[in-house]
Order: sequence, then C-alpha cells, then structure tokens
Amino acid sequence: MNRTMRVEQLQERLSELEIDAAILILSRDVFYYAGTAQPCILAVTPDDYFLIVRRALDFVLNETWMDTGKIIDGGSFKDVLLKLKELGVNRGKLGLEMDVLPAELFLKIAGLFDGFQAVNISDEIMAQRMVKDAEEIGYVRTACDMMKKGQERVLAVLREGMTEVELAAEVEYAHRRAGHEGILSMRHFDFYIGRGPLSSGENLFRVSGFANTVTGVGLSPAVPAGPSSRRIKDGDVVIIDIPTCHQGYHADETRTYVLGKARAEVVDLFQALREISDHVVASLKDGVKCGEMFEAAYSRARKLGVEEYFLGLAPRKGNFIGHGIGLDANEPPILFARSGFVLRRNFVVTVEIHLTHPRHGAVKLEDMVLVKDNRAEILSVTPRELFAV
Amino acid sequence: MNRTMRVEQLQERLSELEIDAAILILSRDVFYYAGTAQPCILAVTPDDYFLIVRRALDFVLNETWMDTGKIIDGGSFKDVLLKLKELGVNRGKLGLEMDVLPAELFLKIAGLFDGFQAVNISDEIMAQRMVKDAEEIGYVRTACDMMKKGQERVLAVLREGMTEVELAAEVEYAHRRAGHEGILSMRHFDFYIGRGPLSSGENLFRVSGFANTVTGVGLSPAVPAGPSSRRIKDGDVVIIDIPTCHQGYHADETRTYVLGKARAEVVDLFQALREISDHVVASLKDGVKCGEMFEAAYSRARKLGVEEYFLGLAPRKGNFIGHGIGLDANEPPILFARSGFVLRRNFVVTVEIHLTHPRHGAVKLEDMVLVKDNRAEILSVTPRELFAV
Repeated sequence: MNRTMRVEQLQERLSELEIDAAILILSRDVFYYAGTAQPCILAVTPDDYFLIVRRALDFVLNETWMDTGKIIDGGSFKDVLLKLKELGVNRGKLGLEMDVLPAELFLKIAGLFDGFQAVNISDEIMAQRMVKDAEEIGYVRTACDMMKKGQERVLAVLREGMTEVELAAEVEYAHRRAGHEGILSMRHFDFYIGRGPLSSGENLFRVSGFANTVTGVGLSPAVPAGPSSRRIKDGDVVIIDIPTCHQGYHADETRTYVLGKARAEVVDLFQALREISDHVVASLKDGVKCGEMFEAAYSRARKLGVEEYFLGLAPRKGNFIGHGIGLDANEPPILFARSGFVLRRNFVVTVEIHLTHPRHGAVKLEDMVLVKDNRAEILSVTPRELFAV
Repeated sequence: MNRTMRVEQLQERLSELEIDAAILILSRDVFYYAGTAQPCILAVTPDDYFLIVRRALDFVLNETWMDTGKIIDGGSFKDVLLKLKELGVNRGKLGLEMDVLPAELFLKIAGLFDGFQAVNISDEIMAQRMVKDAEEIGYVRTACDMMKKGQERVLAVLREGMTEVELAAEVEYAHRRAGHEGILSMRHFDFYIGRGPLSSGENLFRVSGFANTVTGVGLSPAVPAGPSSRRIKDGDVVIIDIPTCHQGYHADETRTYVLGKARAEVVDLFQALREISDHVVASLKDGVKCGEMFEAAYSRARKLGVEEYFLGLAPRKGNFIGHGIGLDANEPPILFARSGFVLRRNFVVTVEIHLTHPRHGAVKLEDMVLVKDNRAEILSVTPRELFAV
C-alpha cells in the first residue's frame, strides 16, 4: 500500500459506511493522509478531497504528496462547507474526529453544518493507521535504535545515590542526541505522562492513577508520574519505560535494571516474566485475537505460579498486555482480556508485561513487535535481559 | 488568597452567573482546586462541592487540601448526577470545560444531564488561575532558576558543527537535572511543539504554522517545530525558547546567542529589541490594558525604526507581545493589539518580542514578569543580553 493511496482507502470506507464527507483536523491524522502536520483542514468525500492550508503553505508544499490541485491556500470551516456544496454534498453523515475534537469547536462545526449528522470517524482512521507500510516500519525501527542508545547510557552512568530524575535526564539526553523528536503523543484526553515512566525501589509499589502499570510517582503532585527525586540505592530495581519518536513514529520499550547484585528472587521473577513474554511473542501472528494473546500470557503466568504478581498487585492489576503503536504511542488495538479483535499482518504492537512481588518489587519487559503472516518479529534491538549494573 | 479558598471563589462566581453546577475533569483544573492531578471528577455547586476519585485514592489523600468528607472513592458521571440530585440540583446551567472536553465525552455528559444546559466554564477557571498567590509565584521563581541552568549549559557547550538538536539535548539535560518536570502544557487543541523551539541561521526565517514567532523547523514534517538536524556555523544567530516546569508551573523564556563574533547589525538589532522590551516592562503595572502594552512595544519599535522587523516579517508577523503563564505555558491574557483586557497585580505574564531582519536574521527576548501595583518585576534570572559564545 502506497502512502498516496491512504486517502483513497478512506474514501472506500466512507462509501461503505454511507458517510457523505469527513473533516479531519488533528495534525497526526492530517499528517497520515497528507504528509504534513501543519495546521490544515482535510475534507474527504467518497469521490473527492481537498486540503485547506491555514498557515505555512511553504512548508506544506514542500512536504505533502498530495496533488497541488487539491491544495487550497487559506480557509475556514465555512469555506469547507461551501466547497462541499460545490461538490454536490449538501447533507448527510459528516465524519469528525469526535474523540479528540473539543466540544466548543465541535458545536461550532455542527452548527455550521446544518442538515448534516455528525458521526465519529476516528475508529475508521485508526483502523487504517493500525496497518503499517514498509516506510512506517522503517521509521519504527529507527525509533527502536534510539531506545538502545538510552539503554547503553543507563549501563554507563547508573550509580548509587543518583536520583531517578537524574537517571531519566541521562536516558532522555541519549535519546535526544540520537534524534528523538521529543514528543510522546497520546490520543487519550488529558493523558500526559511527561517523557515516560521511570521508577525504582519502593516507588515500584506506588501506582499513579493514569495507568495500571509501573508509573513512577513524579516530582510533585502536579505531574504525578515518571521519575521522582528519590535516590537510587544499592540493590534497587529500576524500571525505565521512556519512549522515543522518529518521523512521528514511536518506540515504546521497557527494561529492568538492578543496581549492584540482583537478589535470587528478582532473577527468578524476571526469568518467569521473560518466559511469559517469549510465549506471547511466539504465539503472535496474523489472525489471532487480542484476547487470545492476553490468555496466552495469563495462562503461562499461572503455570509458572506467578499469577498473583501478573500485571501488578490487586486491586491495581492491569488488564492488558500490549497495544498498537505508531503516530501515537498508544493506539488501538489494545491486547486486553477477552478482546475478540483480530491482529493482522503489519500491525506493530507492544508486548508489555510486568510482575509485581509484594516484597521483592516489580520487573517489567516491553517490546516492539511486528505481526507477520505466520509469526512475529521483535523490532526492539535492546537485549531483553535483566541488567545488573 | 489561600489555596483552600479557590473552590469558594469559584462558587461565588457560579452564584453570580447563575450556574447551578460545574463539573471539572481536566487534571490541571482539578489540581488547581484540589491539589491533586490524579483522575478525578470535581463537582461544584454554589453551596457545596465534592471530588470523585476515579483511581489512586492513596495518592489523592496524601496530596489534597480538601476535607476528607468531600472526597468520594470511585464513581462515574452518573454518580455525579445522582449526588447533585441529592444536593437538590436537578436542572439549570451546567458548567463544563468545553474548550478541552472531547466532543464524544461532552455528548455523553450532555445526554446524561438531561434538563441541564451546558455552558463553557473555562473562562471563569482561567480568570481565577490568572491571579497567582505567593506559593504559585514561588514555584514560578524556581522554574526560572532552572532556565538559568539551561542558559549556562549553552555558554559551556555551544560549538561550531553542533546540530540544533544536539544543542537542544544539552539544554533539556540541564533543565531536567535541575528538576524540570518534563512537561509543556498547552490548553489549545492539538498544540504540541515538543520541548520548545530552538532555531538557528537560515532556519530563523522559516516559521512553522503553529505560531507566528521563531519556531524552528523540527527534525521531520511529523513534528515541524523545534530543533532540526541543521549544523550550527560560525557567525550564526541561535534562538532558544525551551520552557521549564516546577510543581506544575512553567517558566517560558527566550535568549539569543551568536556563535563567534556578532555582526554589528545583529548587535544593533538586539539593542533595539532590548530597548523595546525594557519599555514594555517599565510600563507594565496593575490597571494597564493588554492592548496598551502592545502599543507601547510597537510605538517604540517605530521610534527606533525597526517596525518592519517587529514580530517577524510580513505576511507572518505575530500579533501579540506576551501571554499569561502558570499551570499552562500559554494562558490568558494574551497581550495583543487593541485588547481591552486589564492586567492586574499578581498576574504572571511573559514579555515576548522578536525582530526579524530580512538579511541579518532574527533576535528574540522573552522574560517572565510579575505584575505589581505600581510596577512590574522581572522574574527571569538569566541575563537579558545577546550572548556571544
């Protein structure tokens, strides 16, 4: 699938769903279809499309793969309406990104598009974005290479007495020098976790409210996740889950470290974790269901006698073992229990599992994985080990 | 004004505006009123309020200054409705954060709150957030101290042949080691600029679409702002505008550097810029209007013969010379031309001006400023000079 055919593919879906027009404004969505993240309005009908450029036309003309005939310099939602009328679209279903569009703006558009019925088009967009082409997979591989620079930096600098945020600064520095674009995009409302979780020692047991995973506790209640000012001590477990981004595509990967010699119980816990993760990756291929992957993980955890620790301690147990990833760090599908959603070739997903022991702390492993016809390929290039530093 | 009185103040406004209830969910707003950014629903009526904690009650109880009697463990919007009915609120105006609430969620709430009429409450929240108390000003001062660490790092490391992103990595590293919380909050929809602008040489003339200022061009079209992979050369002007955050409060400050010896024209341009900025700061005090501050800047630019360069080159000239700042890096008020909005004591605003010369490049100066009764205090501690490195 060539990137220039993305709009055509959306048009086919509009036809099938009898949606008369879709109007996209979220920069990641516009970027996906048009190759530019500049402020634009992309209007698509089953038979035509046009891109209204609100600012920085010079950037857009340099970047986009769309025909210049489809590009309009300047315009408002009112102009979109007039242009749609010119194309013979006067009423019907209007697809909008209703999961992200602010209410105020939505009401403005809905008021203007009198005679249209607003429907949420985001699921269709995300369904398309799930399937990555060769170029996108290449970008993800580069983002994975950046992750390795961060991991190497940890091995080089982790010392007793460092604070969590000092360690995070080192990882972020290595990522940035490797070309990380410095964003962590999330499609969820109000979901910001700064630059990604880092947690150590007793903080591993403190799970902030934004996700049932290893979150870190943050530097203050204002940003209650990620690294804190806690000093790392000899024997501590440290979990680092700080993503990277290249050409808009994220890599999300977690590695577990021990400062000094790892206790036997931690080594055993990580061994079980690795076995569960390997089992999921070995089961992952085109055609399997998300819920089957969750069950594969959970049943292996049970077999290994670690189900009590699986995805954290009750009552804050997680309910998923991975998620899609691309222009957003968290995309559909979510690999949660009983999900009947079918994974397909060229999906890129994370396999993300942690075990939390009430005394020995947590261990976590998260990898970037490409779904293929009869198998899966781990895109992460960092060794999938417990690192004793 | 004690922080525990913030809810009371909102209640007074609800009374005045005859709004029967307000429901807040944006974490920065909840944090402002309740002291926790954990996932919560804060419901406020003119006579009562309650906080429904959706996850991480342990964190909330540690953090909040609200009475435990006002805190409810778990609940949905339906529970909010039931609880409001218990309080005798069955209908009327319902205040929601309609500038940020996603359409889908808004429609869900509006459907549930049958008999209520949704109104946007965000302007009231932001009007309250504009006035900073002593504690908030203290946090901003600490964020300003962090900015100085970034500036010192630039002076120490800037070398010919470095890329823009390598230089940004150094600044971000210094900020992070100084305790920067690693977020850059913006209340605007889809407004993300990574970690802040950095731009040099000919990139100073390339203004990305997200703002009419010095943006940088970014590493790829996916994130088209901030530092790029351009190598910095001898004689280049470099503008750095990377904010910090402490306890949720931002510092936003821009400094201009020259690698090697600054050309006389650049020195003169910066001298004019500094004079314009000084004039605005000297004019700033309780009771002046935003538009008057813009006019003060523009008239001084005219007097100095640099109006052609003022806020960039046509047609991409900026239309404001500063903005409020706090839990968001860009808050109201905006100091734009002809704005009649009156600045008040204990507002913290930026004074942010750039001059772009068609041949010699751009220079920019941005400071954090506290409005007082009869004057203004510059909170930025970094020297307000053109730095030759």
